[in-house]
Amino acid sequence: MTDADKTFMKRAIELAREGVDRNEGGPFGCVIVRDGRIVGEGNNRVTSTNDPTAHAEIVAIRDACSNLGTFQLDGCIVYTSCEPCPMCLGAIYWSRPVAIFYGGTREDAAAAGFDDDHFYDELQKPNDQRELRMVNLLRREAQDAFAEWTAKVDKTEY
Amino acid sequence: MTDADKTFMKRAIELAREGVDRNEGGPFGCVIVRDGRIVGEGNNRVTSTNDPTAHAEIVAIRDACSNLGTFQLDGCIVYTSCEPCPMCLGAIYWSRPVAIFYGGTREDAAAAGFDDDHFYDELQKPNDQRELRMVNLLRREAQDAFAEWTAKVDKTEY
Repeated sequence: MTDADKTFMKRAIELAREGVDRNEGGPFGCVIVRDGRIVGEGNNRVTSTNDPTAHAEIVAIRDACSNLGTFQLDGCIVYTSCEPCPMCLGAIYWSRPVAIFYGGTREDAAAAGFDDDHFYDELQKPNDQRELRMVNLLRREAQDAFAEWTAKVDKTEY
Repeated sequence: MTDADKTFMKRAIELAREGVDRNEGGPFGCVIVRDGRIVGEGNNRVTSTNDPTAHAEIVAIRDACSNLGTFQLDGCIVYTSCEPCPMCLGAIYWSRPVAIFYGGTREDAAAAGFDDDHFYDELQKPNDQRELRMVNLLRREAQDAFAEWTAKVDKTEY
């Protein structure tokens, strides 16, 4: 890692603390960098915007994609003040950056009262063994939507 | 499951197909129901809005929370045309509904060219064994943000 990596991580941590100071949400911040330049930033805004998906990484990914006019973060690096939760790690995989640097760990988040680590455990379980009830219903009808997609000539894949 | 469950699932599948017809994104739809009434809807809009997080479930959760003025989907049921990817299942856990009904499976999604199943495999790996490079950096400085959160008197927990 380089001094630049540390500078970007310090900015992510600064965003986390500023968000707490402004009562916007939990203590999490994130910056997204391409070619040595910040192209997106975010901090947790769950409680202030009534959006449970407004974690720092999601906010930063949406900001970067909006700024870059793309739905893929090719060549980008994510700096996040804490190890991403499963939602955010999933979002990072979908946006396809080249690397993640993270500050705190999921254990640090758990010690501060956040459920990231617990949710990782839940996601590893088979669907029928999770705390959250999951029921499969109308699979055949649902497959028609996939068939329509597969047959579609002018689709944009992602 | 009831006839009402089937009706809501059919609506989720309809949203999936309508989104494909309108070239908004992948073949996925979702409705969120409370007390027998739809309180939020969504379809995949990744490619049309340049937002890799705009999966049907995320769009529907944000819509429901906005409509209900809350960041927790207490008492709600999620009906989604396909088994949620890790990002969306994480978002569903954070929003805390009581159940999920899903139509297609992660295998159906994989057969149609989507990476959900692969990402589940990736998330189960230790951080240093994933395809995506993950580096821990400045953990101690990052912990200061958690300390500030823990000491904060007027915080809103989630």
